[in-house]
Order: sequence, then C-alpha cells, then structure tokens
Amino acid sequence: MIIVLKPNTSEIKIDSIVQRVESMGLKAQVILGTKRTVIAAIGEKKEGTEELFSSLKDVEKVVPILASYKIASYETKLEYSQITARDLKIGGGQVGIIAGPCSVESEDQIMEAARFIKKTGAKGLRGGAFKPRTSPYSFQGLKEEGLKLLAQARDETGLAVVTEVMTTDHVDLVCKYADVLQIGARNMQNYHLLQAVGETDTPVILKRGLSATIDEFLLAAEYILDQGNHNVILCERGIRSFETHTRFTLPLATVPYLKERTHLPIIVDPSHGTGIASLIPSMSQASIAVGCDGLIIEVHPDPSKAVSDAAQTISLEVFEETVQRCLLVANSLGYNLDV
Amino acid sequence: MIIVLKPNTSEIKIDSIVQRVESMGLKAQVILGTKRTVIAAIGEKKEGTEELFSSLKDVEKVVPILASYKIASYETKLEYSQITARDLKIGGGQVGIIAGPCSVESEDQIMEAARFIKKTGAKGLRGGAFKPRTSPYSFQGLKEEGLKLLAQARDETGLAVVTEVMTTDHVDLVCKYADVLQIGARNMQNYHLLQAVGETDTPVILKRGLSATIDEFLLAAEYILDQGNHNVILCERGIRSFETHTRFTLPLATVPYLKERTHLPIIVDPSHGTGIASLIPSMSQASIAVGCDGLIIEVHPDPSKAVSDAAQTISLEVFEETVQRCLLVANSLGYNLDV
Amino acid sequence: MIIVLKPNTSEIKIDSIVQRVESMGLKAQVILGTKRTVIAAIGEKKEGTEELFSSLKDVEKVVPILASYKIASYETKLEYSQITARDLKIGGGQVGIIAGPCSVESEDQIMEAARFIKKTGAKGLRGGAFKPRTSPYSFQGLKEEGLKLLAQARDETGLAVVTEVMTTDHVDLVCKYADVLQIGARNMQNYHLLQAVGETDTPVILKRGLSATIDEFLLAAEYILDQGNHNVILCERGIRSFETHTRFTLPLATVPYLKERTHLPIIVDPSHGTGIASLIPSMSQASIAVGCDGLIIEVHPDPSKAVSDAAQTISLEVFEETVQRCLLVANSLGYNLDV
Amino acid sequence: MIIVLKPNTSEIKIDSIVQRVESMGLKAQVILGTKRTVIAAIGEKKEGTEELFSSLKDVEKVVPILASYKIASYETKLEYSQITARDLKIGGGQVGIIAGPCSVESEDQIMEAARFIKKTGAKGLRGGAFKPRTSPYSFQGLKEEGLKLLAQARDETGLAVVTEVMTTDHVDLVCKYADVLQIGARNMQNYHLLQAVGETDTPVILKRGLSATIDEFLLAAEYILDQGNHNVILCERGIRSFETHTRFTLPLATVPYLKERTHLPIIVDPSHGTGIASLIPSMSQASIAVGCDGLIIEVHPDPSKAVSDAAQTISLEVFEETVQRCLLVANSLGYNLDV
Repeated sequence: MIIVLKPNTSEIKIDSIVQRVESMGLKAQVILGTKRTVIAAIGEKKEGTEELFSSLKDVEKVVPILASYKIASYETKLEYSQITARDLKIGGGQVGIIAGPCSVESEDQIMEAARFIKKTGAKGLRGGAFKPRTSPYSFQGLKEEGLKLLAQARDETGLAVVTEVMTTDHVDLVCKYADVLQIGARNMQNYHLLQAVGETDTPVILKRGLSATIDEFLLAAEYILDQGNHNVILCERGIRSFETHTRFTLPLATVPYLKERTHLPIIVDPSHGTGIASLIPSMSQASIAVGCDGLIIEVHPDPSKAVSDAAQTISLEVFEETVQRCLLVANSLGYNLDV
Repeated sequence: MIIVLKPNTSEIKIDSIVQRVESMGLKAQVILGTKRTVIAAIGEKKEGTEELFSSLKDVEKVVPILASYKIASYETKLEYSQITARDLKIGGGQVGIIAGPCSVESEDQIMEAARFIKKTGAKGLRGGAFKPRTSPYSFQGLKEEGLKLLAQARDETGLAVVTEVMTTDHVDLVCKYADVLQIGARNMQNYHLLQAVGETDTPVILKRGLSATIDEFLLAAEYILDQGNHNVILCERGIRSFETHTRFTLPLATVPYLKERTHLPIIVDPSHGTGIASLIPSMSQASIAVGCDGLIIEVHPDPSKAVSDAAQTISLEVFEETVQRCLLVANSLGYNLDV
Repeated sequence: MIIVLKPNTSEIKIDSIVQRVESMGLKAQVILGTKRTVIAAIGEKKEGTEELFSSLKDVEKVVPILASYKIASYETKLEYSQITARDLKIGGGQVGIIAGPCSVESEDQIMEAARFIKKTGAKGLRGGAFKPRTSPYSFQGLKEEGLKLLAQARDETGLAVVTEVMTTDHVDLVCKYADVLQIGARNMQNYHLLQAVGETDTPVILKRGLSATIDEFLLAAEYILDQGNHNVILCERGIRSFETHTRFTLPLATVPYLKERTHLPIIVDPSHGTGIASLIPSMSQASIAVGCDGLIIEVHPDPSKAVSDAAQTISLEVFEETVQRCLLVANSLGYNLDV
Repeated sequence: MIIVLKPNTSEIKIDSIVQRVESMGLKAQVILGTKRTVIAAIGEKKEGTEELFSSLKDVEKVVPILASYKIASYETKLEYSQITARDLKIGGGQVGIIAGPCSVESEDQIMEAARFIKKTGAKGLRGGAFKPRTSPYSFQGLKEEGLKLLAQARDETGLAVVTEVMTTDHVDLVCKYADVLQIGARNMQNYHLLQAVGETDTPVILKRGLSATIDEFLLAAEYILDQGNHNVILCERGIRSFETHTRFTLPLATVPYLKERTHLPIIVDPSHGTGIASLIPSMSQASIAVGCDGLIIEVHPDPSKAVSDAAQTISLEVFEETVQRCLLVANSLGYNLDV
C-alpha cells in the first residue's frame, strides 16, 4: 500500500510513520516527490492495516498498489522522477544526452571524444572499462585503467561519467569513478548485482534484457529500488526478434507505454538498437519525437578503428549533427532537450 | 541489368531498345524517373549482352543489378518514386496521411469520418469493405456495399479511397471503386494476388507480413512491379515478436533501412503496429521524425463502438491533434507533410 | 452448440434436425464419428434453443462449444478424426508418412522417387507442381505438366498424391490430379483459398503459418471446415523465431497441445522445420515419439541436384533408414506407423 | 590450435609441452579423452608456431580450431565427453535423468521426492535453494537451509544433488553441498559467475539463455572451460518466441545440431521448455528420441501445492510412467538410458 502524506510533513513525523510500518513487519520505502512524500509499505498486511494508517493525522490517504512492481509504479509517486548526475538531467521533463565510445581504448581516444561531446552540449560521457563480451577471447576492457581515464575526462570536461558494472565484486570500485552505473542487458536479471547497486546511492541505468517483457523489466528495476536506491533510469536498447537486417529490433513504443506505468525515466540506445551507424541519426530523432527522456549513443573519433561495436558507432561530426536535429524535433514539440 | 538512357531519348527509340531486349529472351521494364529513363532487362543473359547495349547510341551506360529485387532496387532508379492518387502524394519528398475506420460500417459512420479527415488536411481515406478476419464467424465487411459507401465519401470530399483487396476474383470489382488497393499483411506472399494487382495500374499499398524479412518484403513488391504496375507503396505495420504488451512490435528502423535500398515509398501504420490507441499519437510523431513517406491511421467517430480494432482506433479529435503535432515535427526537419 | 444424437439415428432423422437448425437461422454441420453423430449448430441463438433441441427424441444431449474454433474443437467430436486418401491413413490412431521432392522436376526424377518411396512402405507422395517462391524470378514449378507427372507416379505406385494449390483459380485443376491438397504456410490466412478448398471434398493439409498462433491456426482450419470439407490435416512445419542456425524453429510441443484441443490429425514437416538435411532423421524420430499422426519429408534421388530446398532434402537411402528408425520408436510406444 | 599427442604420451612429456605453449604467451588447456590427449593452445600465435609443435616427437599432428568456441568444439576432442557425479552419467553414450522439485520447501517434501526418484532409477536430484525470481517480493528459496536438506536427501539416497548458484559470492557455499552446479538461463551471460564456477572442478549444468543463439551458448560454456573446468553440461530449456500457448518454445533440433559441433553433453528441460505439465511426458519421449544425453524434470509429491512452477510440475506417479516410456524409446533406438 502507499501511504500518501499531507504536504509539509516534517522529517520526524515521517520517521515515526516509517517505524510504525516496520513494526508491523512491513518494509517501508520513503519516496520524495517534488509535491508530496509517500511511504510505500511492502509485504503481507494484516486486516485493518490500511484503516489504521488512514486514520493518522499526517496521512492524507492510503491506496493499494495494484502493479506487481510497487516502488516503480507511477501510481506510487504520481509524478515523473528526475535523475541527475552533475549537469546531466534525465526525466521529469528534461531530456539528456549521453555519448561516448563503446570501450575506453586510450587516453587520446577518450579525451578527444569527451572534449567534442562537451562542445555539442551533451552532458554525459559513456565508455566501457569492464566489457561483457560474448567470447572469453575478445578484448575485455581496460578495467580500472579505463575507469581512471574516464575520471580524467570528467575532471577536464565536467561530463557525468556513465560506465558498466558487471559483478557485485566491482560495485565499490566502479562507484569510486562513475557518476552513473550501467547494468547491461545480459545482467538485467542478475539479481544479486541489482541488489548490490541498489545498496549504493549512485544513479543506475538499467538496460532492458534482449528478451525481457515490460513486467520483467520493471521488476528488475524493483530489485534496485527495493534496496533503497531510487535513482534508476530505464533504457530501451532493442530486443531480439526474427529480424536480422538490424542487430536488434528497437521498439520505440516502449517509451510511451512505460510512461503510462512508471515514474522512472526511460532513455533509448539507438546504437545497440539498430547496430547500423547510418540508421542512428534518424532513430535518434524518432526517439526524441516519441517522448524519451534521453539518448545514449556510441560515438568515436574514428569509428572504423573502434575495437568494439565499430559498425554501430558514429563519428563525432555525425553525432554533432544528430544532436542539432534532435534539438529541432524537441523544440517543435516543446520538449526540453538540454544541450 | 539496367540500361540507362541518355536524357531526352524519344519514345520511339525507347520502344526500339525494349524490342531488342525482348528479342533476346529478356523481360524489359521501362522505368520513368523525373530525370532519366531506364530499362530494366531481367532474365538470364548471354555473354556480351551488356557490351552490346552499352554500345548503342541512346544508351548512357549499362549496369548490373546486384539486389535480388531488381525493379524495386534504388540502384535501378537512383531517385525516389512518388505515388499519387487524387491529391494524395506519397514519396519522392512528399509525406501523405491516410485515415479512416478499420471497417466501413454505415453511411453515417464513413461520411462523418471522411468529412472530418478532409478538414484535417489529410488526403487519403481508408476503410475496409472486404475484411480478412481470423475467425470465419467474425464480421467480414459490407463488401460491395462498403465499396459504394467509400466511393460516395470520395465523391463528396475528394479524398483518395484506400481499401483492401483479398482475392484475385475481386481485383476488378475493387478497382472500380478504389483509388489505392491495399494488400494486407496476411496476403503479403499471396503471389497470385500480387500478380493480379500488378496487372492493373492502380496504386497498391503492400503491407509487410508479420514475420517477413526485408528481402521477402521487397521481393513481394517485385511480384507486383514485375507485372508492370510500378505504383507500389510499402507499409511497415509491425512484426510479431515475443512482446505481448503491444499487439505487434513496430520497428521504425525499417524506414531508413528501406530508404537505402529501394526507391519505393514507405509508410507506417501505427494503429496495427501498436494496437493501443494511447500510443498512436507519439508513434505517429516518431514515424514522421524517422523519415517515413506517410501514415495510415485508424480513426472512428466513436472508437468504442467500432466493430473491429476498437482498441487501436483513435477519435477524430485525437487524430486532428496528432496531425498537428506531426506537422510540427515535419516542419522542424524540413519534411513536406501535405496537410 | 453441439447436438449429440443418440446411437443409430437414421439419416432421415438427422436431415430433419438439420432442417430445424437451419430454419432458426443457424448453420448446421453434420459430423460423423465412428461412435456417434453430432450436429454443430453455429451462429447466434435465441434463448431457449438449447432446451428445444435437448427435448427432441433423437437427441442425447446439447452442449455449448466453448472454443472459438467450433467444428475443429475436440469437444465437438470427442474422438480423433482419421483422414484417408488411397492407402494413406492419417489420425485416429494411424500414423502415415508422405515423402517426395520439393518440386516435380522431370519424369525420371518423380518416378524414381515414387518407386523408392513405395518400397519403404510410405503411402503418400508429395511434390510441388505450382511452387510459391519468394522471388518472382525463381523457378515456379512445372505447373499442370507437374500435376500430370504426379498422377502418372500415382497410377504406377498407388501412392496418394499430395500437392500444393496456391490460388482459388487452380482448385479445380489441382483437384483433378491430387489426392490431397496442400495449403502452404504463406497462404494459411488466405481466406478465400481456404473457403475454395473447403467447397471440395478432397483432403487438405493445412500448414501452420510461420508466425501463426495456435488459435489462428485452428481458426484457419475452421474456414475450411465451415464450408463442409471435414478432411483437414494440420501440419506443424516450424515457426520463425530469432534462431538462425536452423531455417525455422520446430516446436514439437504443438503436437500434444493440439491433441488436447482438436480432433483433427496433426503431422510434422521436419524438412522445412529444420532446413538442414542432417537433422531430419533425429527430428523425425522425435516427432513420432511426441505422438504425431504423420510425417511429410522432402526426399530426392540426388539431393544436391534438387532445384529447390536442396539443403533440407534427404536422399532415398537416408529416408529409408529414417522410416525404419521411426518404426522402432512407434512400435516401442504402441503407435501404429503404417509402413 | 590443437596439439594432438601420440597415444600413451607420459604426463611428464605432456607437462613439458604445456610449458612450451605457455612460454610462447599462449594459454594451454589439456583435454583428456578416452582415446587420446590433446592440448588446446589459445591466443595469438607467431608464424611458424604450428610447424614448431608439429615437429615434436610426442606430437601426432597440429590442427587449427576453426570455431570461435575453442575448447567446446567437437573438432578439439573428436569424441563425446561424459560428465559424472556420483552415479549420474551424462554424455559419451550415457543418458541420465535428473528430477526434483523447483524449490526445496521442507524436509518432508524433498525427502519424499528423493526417495521416490531413487526408486524410478533416476540418478540426479534437482532442487532450488537459491531461487532467481522475477519479482523481489516472491519466495527466494530456503538458501543454506535448502542446501542442507538436499545434502541430507543425497546422504540417504545416493542421488547426485543438482542446484543453482546465482552469484560469485555463493560458489564456495553451494559447492560444499552440491554435486552439480546449475547456472540458470538468466545468468547464461553472467561472465564473472561463469568464470567463478570455471575455477572449481564441480560439474556445471549451463542452461541456454532464453534468447541465446547457439554460438552465444557455446561461448558462454567456453568461459567456464577456459578457466579449467571441463565438466560442462549444456541444457536446452526453451527459448522465447512469439508463442504464448506454451511458456517457452522448446526447439529439440538444438540437440542434434549441437552434437555436430561440440563434445559437451546436451540435456533437455521439458518442464521449463513447455511450462505445461500435461505436455511433459510426450516431450520427454521426444527428447530421448532426438538423441539427448539427459533430462531434467520438475516433479513434486503434490504439484498443486508447489510454491513455484506448479503449472509445469508433474507428480511422482506421472514421472515414474514417463521414465518407463522414455526407457522404451531409448531401448528401441539403442540409447543407454541409465535407470
């Protein structure tokens, strides 16, 4: 159930209600909105519990949560969440852009990319340091050395660093360098990893698994939220269908569909979603037009030399033009693309 | 092979080359572009054939067709085709909108829909008279009576009538009333039907089959083109994937992907593509932003009373607003949405 | 509703009940089982109709049909149907085997194949005369010449001829030569074609569409049954999934699932279902073990020279061994494989 | 490259060749077959390396590994691997059966199941102690308490215990109790977990991810093999396709297809593969007939009371009959089903 508090309820009173919830064997999650605070009380309730809380002085009303994803559900918060990391703002009316190479390869590569990305007005820098690769014999990333290069790029440019964490053992290490953690599609249902990042307060981009249903996607987010980290950004990156002309099939309808169900922001990854560089500019425009909260795009100073994902990586120049055209679309529809 | 003629080659000379092609056991298809005329010569060639035609006075050059779809291939025409029916213009730089109910139900219904659609600036009226239905016990359409009502709506409003033809036996009948024939997704590989509409000169909207690859889609178009009807419009209407939250999965990347391969126009059907009315406005905007040549949308004066496809039908008012927002997107990107 | 008649109800009395059903605006379908006769009355019933028929002297009971497929539903017949064509018996406790080349290519080819198949004990000969091909430029079959060769093979060997019909215009022609009509996967929802074969009394093999759900498959069968032709055999031939290592994905669970829902026989096509010759023997064994009513397999005297589907065609020798191993499996489980 | 040693090469000589491989910066994996020993040398080779090893006295020949999965490739070993755990034998000509409840629920439940399973002749006992659940609010398993109950059941019956490990942190703990580790479908590409179980010498059942291609599946196995644990059993448990009448789509063609490519055993999970209890007996028979090396089946003393996967769990009695019918099929084809 959701316990909706009256406006301006003090922290002390919130704490007291939380204790009451917990004393009944329920789990309490405080969700701070810009307009109101709610407490999600999760677990099996005895009869009469809702009435009990309804009658408290600071409680406006108590409503049941119908969705299986409790904290992620829009009905729990009734306003869209905005997740921020440095100047990057995603959700709650703001559209942000994250760009960068698939893998961090060298100081020159990441610094050149970061400086250019900064110039375009994008606010996030992506780059893989720990790389999940289909084959054990493929390049597995520069690891901590890659994280340090990302931090160096952040220090110079101010861009928020987005990078993947692949295993619970690395969560502390990656958090030391990253502004936003990424959970890759292969790990969407790696529940211990979800719980581990849920114990931090670093924002998390959760990529949709390639064959995940929307409910599975939201319940994976719920694993993070349930640990207390509410800074979760969903990312549609394409699903596996029978189509082979594109690397994956990118269903943009996910965006408005999720907007009807969750307060979490939803961004689109047109690079993995198509796997083909020439389709990325138009699919980026379409993603903005469909109402996404952000884009994450693979760019490289010299795509043909990228050590991974070369076919789906665009050049800095194409990226710049893409940003400009996305801005035209956003402006025409009244969306705040922050570049 | 494609025989590219010099500019301003006279019809007599074109005919003479066509005869020469045919005399060699090849099939000749004359393809008229705005800038040049080409002759596609299809079939197994003897050695030396290319050289022979290259040496003709009116021939600029002879090039092989690499794609398995010969006439549909962009390389055959080197400019985008525009298909027109009354005021409706699709392709070649023009974006058109077709709207109307799933099924023609009554004079009142189709006339009210048509008048409203006309007011929004859309140029095409869709409406099913012969309805392919999953169950033999479902409403199968008003048949010829439905065609007559569509014609009546056209006569009053000037909208181009788009309606489905389901079997070779009906091609003549439907052509009597329709400005544009529609081949439904279930019939995308009904080759005799494709050939039958290929023998007419009425424009044809060919819907992608729910599990058709892009090559199968273009080769289905080729069955129509090969009979001499070059007025083919491709329609992405969603594919069947594991996703069940939407009726189908609508992969907008099909649009830019096809633009790199074929000169045929490509429109999007966000109604079948999502199956959910509330997703249609944003997916229409996205379709425009991705660069499609048109939209085909199910609208109804009272969607809740539609005898078929009610869940994916939008009201006239929502349609009007959708058109307006699509126009904003199109204008921002410099696309000519004709409303 | 289903009107179950008492045992040994005379034809005259059956006719009189049929007339009564029809006089109420309902469609009557007489379904003859080995143990009892039922009349399926389809359409919208007035209140009291069930009670009225229940009270008739020759009626044992009246039960509603819950499934959307009325005549195909197991509950309508309560025993499994057996379809026969010459010595070929499919369903109702009999497992039959149909084999032959993808396309009829020449007299030598089809006669050699037929003679060998006859020797193995299989009872059906498949062979394409009208071929649905993805490209208009591929070999389209020998057409009527191919039908004549099939008939010649039948005349010599006694095998039942199975061949595809692609369009309503050809139904009469193909019926002249064929013992069993085949509706291909691409035409599973070509409703006019289904109705046309439904008007004949020739047995029909209906192949599952590559993205058809089970309900869509049974409702397609219902289009045939609804016209009065009850000799319908369902064929699982593989679906389109994300898998590309096999041509299609062959879900054998379709067989027992259908057996719980329909009285129609269900056969398996391991040739199209896998697309790889080396997988066909083991998948044939598995199909028998799962409880199918028959197999349809592509064989060719010289698979490497087959003009179509060469990769999925097995040699006569491999076919012979496959039949033998299928027989071992059938015998071990008590299934009657008729070879 | 694969360095094939002469028969009866001594361990000392094997070690010396391994050192030589490693001194060249390559990784050496010794693969012991029943007939011969090979050393897989993986990594980037200098020119002349193959010739160098070919010329050694104890080396029969050196061949390149063409597949991207090096150690898993059949060409590396040229005989099928058999994995054993207590009396359970999987692969290399032996077919084994593993059965048990989805989750360990109580001492009574697991002991009753284990005793019955033992009686049927099956050699493996499955049971989930750590359960990956789609929702964080679902039962997550009895954890270590569940492992202890499994060990108790093993101690009494002698059955080999098969149970899932979900995270690197638990590998040691689970190894303390389990005879065979299971990596679930959701974790098929959890590479750190694969590496962690690769560092043990406990046999591992690796389940196919729901949208994994065969190459991705084999490369996931390679992550385990590459760490030195060669006791890997592959498990086909169904893929996600558009089909919804079954929980997943179970493509049995995976079995013979894998047999052509890898020496690793391949078992089938008809419980998850169909999700419907009534389909499991016939799909088990089909799995045996297609040539699998084993089955893993969910059984429960009272399926209707199972806390998880109730719909796909069969009773002990149905299981017993299924084993008997599988035995008939195996015997008819000459396969050694060990019950």
